[in-house]
Amino acid sequence: MAYETILVNEQAKLMTITLNRVADGNSVNVRLLQEMNLALDHAESQPEVRIVVLAGSAGTFSSGMDLSELSRSDCHASNSITEAATLYFRTLQRFTSTGKLIVSNVDGRANAAGVGLVAASDFVIISARSTFSLSEALFGLIPANVVPFLIRRVGFQRAYLMALTAQQVDARRAVEIGLADEVTSDAEAAVRRLLIRIHRIRETTVRTTKSYFRQMCLLNEDTERLAVAQICELLRDNENVAGIRRYVAHGTFPWQAGNL
Amino acid sequence: MAYETILVNEQAKLMTITLNRVADGNSVNVRLLQEMNLALDHAESQPEVRIVVLAGSAGTFSSGMDLSELSRSDCHASNSITEAATLYFRTLQRFTSTGKLIVSNVDGRANAAGVGLVAASDFVIISARSTFSLSEALFGLIPANVVPFLIRRVGFQRAYLMALTAQQVDARRAVEIGLADEVTSDAEAAVRRLLIRIHRIRETTVRTTKSYFRQMCLLNEDTERLAVAQICELLRDNENVAGIRRYVAHGTFPWQAGNL
Amino acid sequence: MAYETILVNEQAKLMTITLNRVADGNSVNVRLLQEMNLALDHAESQPEVRIVVLAGSAGTFSSGMDLSELSRSDCHASNSITEAATLYFRTLQRFTSTGKLIVSNVDGRANAAGVGLVAASDFVIISARSTFSLSEALFGLIPANVVPFLIRRVGFQRAYLMALTAQQVDARRAVEIGLADEVTSDAEAAVRRLLIRIHRIRETTVRTTKSYFRQMCLLNEDTERLAVAQICELLRDNENVAGIRRYVAHGTFPWQAGNL
Repeated sequence: MAYETILVNEQAKLMTITLNRVADGNSVNVRLLQEMNLALDHAESQPEVRIVVLAGSAGTFSSGMDLSELSRSDCHASNSITEAATLYFRTLQRFTSTGKLIVSNVDGRANAAGVGLVAASDFVIISARSTFSLSEALFGLIPANVVPFLIRRVGFQRAYLMALTAQQVDARRAVEIGLADEVTSDAEAAVRRLLIRIHRIRETTVRTTKSYFRQMCLLNEDTERLAVAQICELLRDNENVAGIRRYVAHGTFPWQAGNL
Repeated sequence: MAYETILVNEQAKLMTITLNRVADGNSVNVRLLQEMNLALDHAESQPEVRIVVLAGSAGTFSSGMDLSELSRSDCHASNSITEAATLYFRTLQRFTSTGKLIVSNVDGRANAAGVGLVAASDFVIISARSTFSLSEALFGLIPANVVPFLIRRVGFQRAYLMALTAQQVDARRAVEIGLADEVTSDAEAAVRRLLIRIHRIRETTVRTTKSYFRQMCLLNEDTERLAVAQICELLRDNENVAGIRRYVAHGTFPWQAGNL
Repeated sequence: MAYETILVNEQAKLMTITLNRVADGNSVNVRLLQEMNLALDHAESQPEVRIVVLAGSAGTFSSGMDLSELSRSDCHASNSITEAATLYFRTLQRFTSTGKLIVSNVDGRANAAGVGLVAASDFVIISARSTFSLSEALFGLIPANVVPFLIRRVGFQRAYLMALTAQQVDARRAVEIGLADEVTSDAEAAVRRLLIRIHRIRETTVRTTKSYFRQMCLLNEDTERLAVAQICELLRDNENVAGIRRYVAHGTFPWQAGNL
């Protein structure tokens, strides 16, 4: 399988996965998640790779789930929704269990599922123009998959308010609340510093540390079941589905359609 | 039932509940909790109401539980204590489950049970002179009902230290630790911004988001049982009860009575 | 048993335990933990003592576990490892359950098990030159005993990153993330303020408050079993043990030995 939705670059100890669906705001679809997992398989087969950097485009990290793909799914059957939601959750879980250090490099907008990729990363480097938002509520949805990972990073209330109000968080605030670890205009230098640091630690230790910490939080199979069930239920709501389809077709948010 | 302990004002999408026991520092008693729940019933019966603002007086949000009422209860029978503590806990729980956005508007002192009202709110707007404290320990008590909601907002250690030392937190620090969301001298403008924002989101989505987040924290029936039992046990302690009665009668704290 | 590894000073309401293994960087060994518990027994037998201050030396709070003692243990039998790890965990648990207020006074470096002593304290006073680090990962280990206490203080992600990267945290950042409560050059004055404050609260209330909060976090017997088992497993790994022995004998870190 050749990569269509991501670019993969390897330089000795570093693998960079660049989201490459620029025309669609680097939105996350099933194909992109599959390719990202293939790239991670490849990274894990190479002991010399220590850090996997996840990057977007200049100005856009990721706009969230591919609503166009989502709105074409038969939501009442919901199998494909279940599969997509499960695949997304497991990809985030994989970030928090692999022996590679997962570093998000954000320069621009991260929204919804894009925030999940960031929240599940071990280290998050951002540029000063980066922004973070959870737009799900605008479509009657909940960022159910993102929330458990976001709570780990920023605590309960800050995750709650982002989800409840869909309010955007800027770069300064993202660092303040712990959603990001470093604001810099030189992401490469920040990655180099992490490489020097991680070089001192065995890959197996990284894996064991992640495994131990997972037992200290609420991320388990029950969480996955809960999250996926919640998403499927909300996408069986006809009003939500209609709102998403209108947005995909016409770019109007549900609240602009005067039907709230 | 006419409101005696609160004032209720409705303006289109906004309901404001103003604590109206000014002579008693807006302390929380059973009647006030009942009336607050009636007002919430009323708000929930009106789909156009999206935000319920909870306000105190200028200088005083709420001084906490009505110790005078508490000290008149037959603590050894403890039924009325159990009922009052349960009613208080369920009122906070209701804040975290209703489809209305609950906004505390604090201008002045919030203490003990008053901090609980704030901590359980979805959004907290405060003036620069506001202060927050948990005075329970001074009376041999624990803010058992407040703690689970406070931990959600400020994390474990910050809630722990407030409870353990009864140290007051000022407005700047309250925002820093996440107990409040915004310091402003124009609370009305802050509420208007929230109205614009919440207008974009369906009420059912607010309710579902709250419900989902409750499954991500430790707030369940066990927590309620634990909290209520803890309060009743401490109010069966004769020394605590005597200290509260002396404070109500003479205004002296237990530590001033030289009996610590 | 006379104190060999600590100095104990009593002044009315205050007991100060000073780590006194200066030549070994105040590292924590079994003897030191036993003596610390004896001092706590003594404090608890005296109702007038309200605060126990834990201090290190000028420049060094504690360098962590005594790796020399650890590397002499028969790790495959692992009984002594189990006992030491359990004793350490229970000492931290004791900080979070005793009726005395436990105050760490840090002036300099706190590392690994030294950070655990700090994290489990009720209040943490530090000087501006203090630093905090978890070096365990450099030796293939995990700060398994420290982590549950550290998460209580600084939240999941900040504890995770400290453990995963062994990156040092300076004094300013320690206060920012809540690992420390106050930076000051006058620790004595800070302790005096705490004495005035705690004087208003009964010792039994301190104990009950701590007990209640323990039920609000993940610190229970399962956590102890999990932590101790994790430590023993990692110290049955021959590569880890060899690395620790080389460090003790020659001062070289595993990553400097070119075998990573």
